[in-house]
Amino acid sequence: MSAPPETCAVGVDLGGTKTTAALVDPQGRVIRRATSATPGADGPDAILEVTCGLIAQVATGAAPLGVGVGAAGVIDHRTGTVRSSTSVLRNWTGTPVRDRIADATGLPTVVVNDVHAHALGEAWVGAAAGADSMLMVAVGTGIGASFVRGGEVWFGAHDVAGHLGHIPVAAAATRSCVCGRAGHLEAVAAGPAICVLYGERTGEYVHAAQEVVQRAAAGSADALAVLTSGARALGEAVGGAVNLIDPAMVVIGGGVAGAGELWWRPMETALRQQLLPATEQVSVRASMLGADAALAGAASLALGAAR
Amino acid sequence: MSAPPETCAVGVDLGGTKTTAALVDPQGRVIRRATSATPGADGPDAILEVTCGLIAQVATGAAPLGVGVGAAGVIDHRTGTVRSSTSVLRNWTGTPVRDRIADATGLPTVVVNDVHAHALGEAWVGAAAGADSMLMVAVGTGIGASFVRGGEVWFGAHDVAGHLGHIPVAAAATRSCVCGRAGHLEAVAAGPAICVLYGERTGEYVHAAQEVVQRAAAGSADALAVLTSGARALGEAVGGAVNLIDPAMVVIGGGVAGAGELWWRPMETALRQQLLPATEQVSVRASMLGADAALAGAASLALGAAR
Repeated sequence: MSAPPETCAVGVDLGGTKTTAALVDPQGRVIRRATSATPGADGPDAILEVTCGLIAQVATGAAPLGVGVGAAGVIDHRTGTVRSSTSVLRNWTGTPVRDRIADATGLPTVVVNDVHAHALGEAWVGAAAGADSMLMVAVGTGIGASFVRGGEVWFGAHDVAGHLGHIPVAAAATRSCVCGRAGHLEAVAAGPAICVLYGERTGEYVHAAQEVVQRAAAGSADALAVLTSGARALGEAVGGAVNLIDPAMVVIGGGVAGAGELWWRPMETALRQQLLPATEQVSVRASMLGADAALAGAASLALGAAR
Repeated sequence: MSAPPETCAVGVDLGGTKTTAALVDPQGRVIRRATSATPGADGPDAILEVTCGLIAQVATGAAPLGVGVGAAGVIDHRTGTVRSSTSVLRNWTGTPVRDRIADATGLPTVVVNDVHAHALGEAWVGAAAGADSMLMVAVGTGIGASFVRGGEVWFGAHDVAGHLGHIPVAAAATRSCVCGRAGHLEAVAAGPAICVLYGERTGEYVHAAQEVVQRAAAGSADALAVLTSGARALGEAVGGAVNLIDPAMVVIGGGVAGAGELWWRPMETALRQQLLPATEQVSVRASMLGADAALAGAASLALGAAR
C-alpha cells in the first residue's frame, strides 16, 4: 500500500446508472474501489444503502479521514442536500445526502455535484495539475462545466454554476432543450441530441451517441455531419466562455468527448476561432483521469475538510 | 466635508475621450472631482501628465491614502502596466501606468481595467451593494463584463476576463467583429454596430447609437428593429452567462443600456428566456452610480490596498 491508510479518504461518484466508491490516498491515487448499479428507480433509501455499503467495503481496515461525494443533481454544497434533480434518481430532490451518509458511516462527509468533483480531480492530480485556474467541460448525457480557481470550485449563488449546456448557440436555433427553453447547446451537442439529430436525418434511430461515432468512423457522411455540428457548437460555446472567464486551461471530458479525433478536431477548431489574441494562449486538454477524476476530486474535499 | 480627508483616496477613470479624478471618502462618496479631455493622440506622457494634474487638483489639502485607477485597455492588475489597447490611446500598450503615477504623486497606486473599476463601484456602494456576487455588463463602444465575488474581481489568467462582447451569438452570424473574428456579440449589440446596422438598413449613416435610440423613440420602425435586435442578442448572451456563472445579481450599464425601456425590455425578456429554473431568481438591475461607479470602484482599490 502506497500510503498509511489513516491519511486516506473515501471518494464516491454517485451517478444516474452506477455508483463507485474508492479509497484515495493523499496523493490522489485510488488504492481500491467498489462499484454497483445505482438503484435510481427505488428512491433515496435504496440509493444511500448501496452507497454506504460501497463506502464500508473500501474503507474496511483503513480508518479514512472522511467521505467526499460527487453526486448527480444540483447539490447545495454547504448542506450536502439535493436542490434539484432529473427523474433518473426518483425522489432525489430534497435528500440530505451528507447527513444521511455521515450518520450511517460516522465519518465527516462533504457532497458536491459530480461535474465539480470531476473538475477538482483533474485540477488536483489530472490534466490541470499545477494550473492556477481551469474550466472543466463534461460532454455526455448532459453538458456541464466547472470553474476551479486555486483549487476551489465556484459553485454559484444558487449552486448551479457550470450549466454550459444552457448557453444559446446558433446551431440549436429553435430546438427544444431538456430544460424547457429553446436554442441551447445541449439540444445539439449532448449525447441524446446527437442520437435524435442522426435519427431525424436518416430515419434510423440509435440509442447511444457512441453508435453515431462508430458510423462516422466507418464513413457515414450523415453521422459525421451530425457529430461535427455538435462538436462545432460545443467549441464555439466554450470559446466564448474562455473569452468571458479567461481560465489558464480548459479540460474537456465525458463520453462524447471520448469520441476521438473526429469530434475533437472540429471542436477545437471552432473553439480557437472564437479566441481573442490574449486568450489564444489557453491550453485545451482532454480529461486525463477518466472515471477516477470524480473519485479523486470528491476525496480531495474530504481530505481538505479533515485538515 | 463628510469625512476626515486623511481617510480618503483618489479614484481615476481614465477613458478614451475623457479622464476624471475624484476624491472619494471611505463610504464611497465623491467629495470633489476634476475632468479633462484625454489627449489620447499625444501618447502616454501627455495622458499621464493630464492624469497626474487632475489627481493633484482633487488631492490638494486632503492627504489621500492612495490612488486607484480604472483605465482603458487590458491592464496587468499586478503590475499596473498596459498589456494591450486599441489605437484610441496612442502607444498606450506597455505603459507602466502604476509606476508612473506612483512616482509622480508619491502615493501608492493600483491600476485595473475601467470595466472592473465600474463593477467594483457598483458592488461596493451601487446597484449590487450587499450582493455576494455580481456580473457587471457595460454596453457602450465595446461590451465588457466583470465578475465580482466577495468584493473581489476575477481578472482572469491573462487579465482579459470579462470579454462578453466576444461571445458568439446567432444574430451576428458571419459579421466581422473588431477583434478580427466573426459572429461575436459586439458586432450587433455595441454602439458602433448599432450605427452600422442602421446605416445598412436605411442608407442613412449616424454617428452615435443615441441617434438611433432617438429615432426609435420617435417612431422609426427601422431604428427600433436594429435596437431591439442588438438588445435581444445582448440579453441572450447574458442569460447564457448567468446559467454558466450563476451570479447573485446582474448589473447592466453603459451608454447603450441608458437608452431606456425601448432597449431594456427586449434585453431583459431575451435574458430571462434563457434561464434555468434555479437561475430565474437572479436579480437584473440597471447600473446606479453612472460615471461615479468607476471613480468609487477605483478608489476602493486604493482604500483596500492602504488598509
